[in-house]
Amino acid sequence: MKVLSGIQPTGRFHWGNYFGAIQQYIALQDNEQAFYFIADFHALTTVRDRDLLKGFTQDAAIDLLSLGLNPEQATLFRQSDIPEVTELTWLLMTLTQMHLLEKCHAYKDKKAKGLAADAGLFTYPVLMAADILIYDSEVVPVGLDQVQHIEVTRDLAQRFNTIYGREVFVLPEARVLETTAKVPGTDGDKMSKSYGNIIEVFHPTPKKFRKKIMSIKTDSKTVEEPKDPESCAVYTLAKLFSTSEQLEELAARYRAGGMGYGDAKQYLYDRAMDYFGPAFEKRAELEQKPGEVEDILQAGAAKARVKAQEVLSRARDACGLAIHKPS
Amino acid sequence: MKVLSGIQPTGRFHWGNYFGAIQQYIALQDNEQAFYFIADFHALTTVRDRDLLKGFTQDAAIDLLSLGLNPEQATLFRQSDIPEVTELTWLLMTLTQMHLLEKCHAYKDKKAKGLAADAGLFTYPVLMAADILIYDSEVVPVGLDQVQHIEVTRDLAQRFNTIYGREVFVLPEARVLETTAKVPGTDGDKMSKSYGNIIEVFHPTPKKFRKKIMSIKTDSKTVEEPKDPESCAVYTLAKLFSTSEQLEELAARYRAGGMGYGDAKQYLYDRAMDYFGPAFEKRAELEQKPGEVEDILQAGAAKARVKAQEVLSRARDACGLAIHKPS
Repeated sequence: MKVLSGIQPTGRFHWGNYFGAIQQYIALQDNEQAFYFIADFHALTTVRDRDLLKGFTQDAAIDLLSLGLNPEQATLFRQSDIPEVTELTWLLMTLTQMHLLEKCHAYKDKKAKGLAADAGLFTYPVLMAADILIYDSEVVPVGLDQVQHIEVTRDLAQRFNTIYGREVFVLPEARVLETTAKVPGTDGDKMSKSYGNIIEVFHPTPKKFRKKIMSIKTDSKTVEEPKDPESCAVYTLAKLFSTSEQLEELAARYRAGGMGYGDAKQYLYDRAMDYFGPAFEKRAELEQKPGEVEDILQAGAAKARVKAQEVLSRARDACGLAIHKPS
Repeated sequence: MKVLSGIQPTGRFHWGNYFGAIQQYIALQDNEQAFYFIADFHALTTVRDRDLLKGFTQDAAIDLLSLGLNPEQATLFRQSDIPEVTELTWLLMTLTQMHLLEKCHAYKDKKAKGLAADAGLFTYPVLMAADILIYDSEVVPVGLDQVQHIEVTRDLAQRFNTIYGREVFVLPEARVLETTAKVPGTDGDKMSKSYGNIIEVFHPTPKKFRKKIMSIKTDSKTVEEPKDPESCAVYTLAKLFSTSEQLEELAARYRAGGMGYGDAKQYLYDRAMDYFGPAFEKRAELEQKPGEVEDILQAGAAKARVKAQEVLSRARDACGLAIHKPS
C-alpha cells in the first residue's frame, strides 16, 4: 500500500508527538511504500519567521532520521520541494464547495473563539487534499481529529473525477492511529505544546534532559509514605519505556513506601535514556553532516516529484490545460 | 512601465470586450513593457469542460494576435504555463485575512443571490494578486469593477513585505480604463454575455456576421418616417467605427426619413468590415498555423517564467523555504 504522512515543522517534537504518531508512522516503512513529508507550506500559516521555519524544518528532518526513519525504505522530503502540490491545490480549489471548508474544525474553532483566521487556515484542507492525492496515496494514517480532512479529500477527489469524467484521483482511506498510549506532560495534564508542559524528545545535553524529568509535578508525600503509582505522571510516563516486569517492580516500590519521587524520576530518566539513547547518538552524528541530510531530502524530493508530475499531468489534461514535458 | 493584463478564456470576445478593454490593452504595447496572459487557471472556476477550455484558450490567443497584439513587442502567454503563480498564491494565502476576501464583490454578489460559491471564486483575488506580483508589475489596466482586486493585491504585498521585513514585492497601481465607448447589444441593453445580446468580434463567415448585425432590435418606424439616431442601437454601435463626418451624414439620414433600418445596419456592417477586415484576414491566416501560435505562447511563457522564478525565489527566501536553482 502507498502510505503518506506529513508532519508540520512548527517546533521540536515531544513525547506526545512521538508516542502518538511518529513512532507509528516510522513503523509503517517496514511493510508499506511510505512517503513522509515535512509540511513547511502548511507551517507558514503559523510560523512567520524565516530563521525559525528553516530551523524547525531542518530539525524535523534530523529528528525523523535519528528516530529510525530509513531513507532506503521510505521517501522523506520537504513539502515545498514539490511545487506541483500548490498547482493541484488550485485545480481542486476551483471545485471546492465553501460549506465543505466552513465546517472544518480548525477554522471553525478559531472563529468560534472570536480569533481572526487567515485564508491559509481556511483553505488548509484543500492543500492537504492535494498533498494526499498527488502521490496516489492509498492510506493516510491520522489522529482522530484529522479524519474529517480525509473525508474532504475523498469528496474533492470524487467531485473532480465526476466533473471531468475520468478516474484521475485514487480515493485514499484514513487509518486512525491507535491512541492507547497516554502521555501526560510535566504537570500531569495531556502533553501539549499549548499547555507548556512538554518533554522534548531531543535535548541539548543529558543534564538538561534530566532536569526536565526532575521537573515533573508529583504530590508532596514524604519518602517513607506509600504512594499510588496510577495517579502519578512519572509512573504513567515510565509505562512508555518499561517491560511489564520492570513496571510491576516499580509499582511495588511505589506502594511499599520508602522510595522518593526523585528515585522514580531517576528510573524514568534511565529508561528513557536507554530507549532514546541510540536516537541521541544518531542525532549527534547527523548534526555534523548537514550535507548528508540535505542530500537525503533532495533525493526524496526527486523521487516524490516524478510521481507528483505524473498525477498533476493527469489532472491538467482532464481539465483541458496544456500539457508540456516536465521542465 | 511594466504593464500586466489577463483575459479569461470563457467564451468568444465580443464588441463590448474589445472596445471596453482589449483595444486599450493592445495599444499599451507600443510604449510599455507589456505582459498579457490568458487566464486559464481563473477560467476553471466557471469552465469545467476540457474541450471547451482548450478551444477558448486557443481562440483567445488567435483573437488577440489577429487584433494586433504583436508578440515582438508584448509577451503573450497562458497563465497555466507559469505554475509558479500557484505557489505564490499559497504563500500569499497564508497571510490573507478572511475579511479581505469576504468583502470582494464577485463572491459577495453570488452569495447575496443565494447561489453556492466555490472556494475558487472566494480565493480568486489571491490568485489574481499572485498573477500581478510575480512579474513585478507596476501598472494594471482594469475596469472599475476590478479596482477592488488591485487594492487587495497591494494589501497582500504590503502585509508580506512587513511581516518578513523585506521589500519582496513591488506595489502595483491600478490604471482605470476609459469607459467612454458605450457598447449596446443587439437588444439595445449593455452588451454582455449574460444578457445573450452579444456581437462576437469574429464570426465563422461574413454571412453570419451580417445576419447578426441585421438582428439588432430597432423600433417599428417605416422607411419614410424620420428617425432618432441617438435612441437607436445601430447608430450607437456605428459610432465605434465612424469618423465624425461619416457620423454626421448618417445622423442626417436618420432625421430626414426615407432611410430604413436595413440601410443603417448595412452601413454598420460595412464600417465594421472595414475596421475588423484586417483582423479577419489575419485570423484566417493564423488558423492555418496552430504551430506558430503555440510557438508564440511558449516563447512568451519562457520569458515570463524567468521573471516569475526570480520573484518567487525572493518570496520563498523571505519565508525561510529552501531555494534551489530553477529546475
